[in-house]
Amino acid sequence: MTAARYDVLGIGNAIVDVLARADEDFLRRHDMRKGAMTLIDETRASGIYAAMGPAVEVSGGSAANTIVGCASLGGRTAFVGKVKDDTLGKVFAHDIRAAGVAFETPPASEGPSTARCYVLVTEDGERTMNTYLGAAQDLHPRDIDADAVAGAAITYLEGYLWDPKHAKDAFLKAAAAAHEAKRLVALTLSDAFCVDRWRDEFLELVRSGTVDLLFANEAELRSLYQTADFDTALGALRLEARLAVVTRSEKGCVVVRREKVLEVPADRVERVVDTTGAGDLFAAGFLYGLARDASHERAATLGALAAAEVIQHLGARPQTSLKVLAQERGLAI
Amino acid sequence: MTAARYDVLGIGNAIVDVLARADEDFLRRHDMRKGAMTLIDETRASGIYAAMGPAVEVSGGSAANTIVGCASLGGRTAFVGKVKDDTLGKVFAHDIRAAGVAFETPPASEGPSTARCYVLVTEDGERTMNTYLGAAQDLHPRDIDADAVAGAAITYLEGYLWDPKHAKDAFLKAAAAAHEAKRLVALTLSDAFCVDRWRDEFLELVRSGTVDLLFANEAELRSLYQTADFDTALGALRLEARLAVVTRSEKGCVVVRREKVLEVPADRVERVVDTTGAGDLFAAGFLYGLARDASHERAATLGALAAAEVIQHLGARPQTSLKVLAQERGLAI
Repeated sequence: MTAARYDVLGIGNAIVDVLARADEDFLRRHDMRKGAMTLIDETRASGIYAAMGPAVEVSGGSAANTIVGCASLGGRTAFVGKVKDDTLGKVFAHDIRAAGVAFETPPASEGPSTARCYVLVTEDGERTMNTYLGAAQDLHPRDIDADAVAGAAITYLEGYLWDPKHAKDAFLKAAAAAHEAKRLVALTLSDAFCVDRWRDEFLELVRSGTVDLLFANEAELRSLYQTADFDTALGALRLEARLAVVTRSEKGCVVVRREKVLEVPADRVERVVDTTGAGDLFAAGFLYGLARDASHERAATLGALAAAEVIQHLGARPQTSLKVLAQERGLAI
Repeated sequence: MTAARYDVLGIGNAIVDVLARADEDFLRRHDMRKGAMTLIDETRASGIYAAMGPAVEVSGGSAANTIVGCASLGGRTAFVGKVKDDTLGKVFAHDIRAAGVAFETPPASEGPSTARCYVLVTEDGERTMNTYLGAAQDLHPRDIDADAVAGAAITYLEGYLWDPKHAKDAFLKAAAAAHEAKRLVALTLSDAFCVDRWRDEFLELVRSGTVDLLFANEAELRSLYQTADFDTALGALRLEARLAVVTRSEKGCVVVRREKVLEVPADRVERVVDTTGAGDLFAAGFLYGLARDASHERAATLGALAAAEVIQHLGARPQTSLKVLAQERGLAI
């Protein structure tokens, strides 16, 4: 195994977020499941956009947010995902490259437009997401550069990739290339309803060792093991996963290995403005730490720091240098 | 004079802001005048966008921000400005309508794309603006609905409108329609360099009474009267303007009439994140107060409240209901 060219390479849906504030009544009137990510078609997308309030457009996508977070911490990173060659596709490409991330996936010149996620942020800071996958569905195995993957210490994949047809194959191609180069493969479960759709396949990825590191929040973990009891789910996870991190919002996170369970507290935050990207940015800190051989505790502390930054403003990508924040806290690597 | 259909009708450049953080060195390397608004062509726009960091897209435009602020305070409002029928044009139209503003100006189906302002926000919260006017230049007198103007208690115009060729004529048509209906006409000087370009014409607008209410900040006022001394400029303004408000950032504002000069303090703000829109939102509060027959002091206090909200986050439009903020402070009208 040679020295890694990238600390982390992410593969995910390339999405531009359209964020607006909304009240609970809006969610009810539009049959939205609060806190969840729901896939929508173009007609529903138009209807939601017409009904929602003044919005902010900002590049998003779960793994893309994570990779930008790694870059903000000082990591060498790459992202693979599909946009169309349209206005929002150019916005996505600009933003991720401007963050210092290598992004070489060729845009689609025809077919559906760049993916958009209509994010409704309620008063409590919770986000409810409606995703029109558009061009992101057209991520194919041919978009995976096996050399780039082999050159990344960790290849990170989002569970949402299991929804678009060919993206799943791209995911598996990347995982194989990573393991062939003796690198790590990480996966986030993304969303409890996503787990509901793909439970057996996700469990198989963990059990077969296709995934070395699993990220999940409490709801996703309970969904994975179909139990309402957190400790039961955690116990099951401990037996099956090589390494896993379960995030618990303001209660911090649990780093799970068969030998040991480690709890790391969350950062205290004065006011939660928008939780969009909290999980993505936690993963950014943990992955960056792991890629740089930090202890699990330090990696999780970096994750908590990154998540705390992103929930204090609208949008799912850091607005300040996470590297500087880490330096101020004596956590720089 | 019948009861007003609108409290405030604004006419301005319809622009989408592309905001990113930058350091002072970036401004120097790209020959930008810090704090100013510079007009740029498409080539320069591409160059700046390619060089700037990850951005956020959010509807802007000076008068448009003001009108959205009036609407957020509870005002009945309308906006006139030109976008193209493209992605960003649709974003602009969605956002202003979703804010409750009547926006009926037909989009251009051909010609240059929707206007964009590349806003670089430095560590101190100051914004430096580079505007590609695009479709906004094609605002024509035929876009002014004289009936709508006649039905607005105040018609508000931005000095930036003096840059696009036909927009100036649209401005004058609107001012005439407003005065014919015995309504008020307000103007903001927009930018010290804009005043530099159009000083004589702006002075004539004030002297001739084409403008009943003038908004300026200190730099714009000094530029208008070509003096480094604020008090000299204020003295000159007092003799010429029917009513004027000079904003002085954290020093508050001065409401100027021949008979009386009234100072109103600024709101205290813990941390200035981004001053984009501070002047626009001050004007929103003052105009709304004036349209609802509040005292100048109360109107200026509403202006201070609206400005304080907008400088505490990225972007030039309120992210919380200004009406609720005003209610909490006992300032609701």
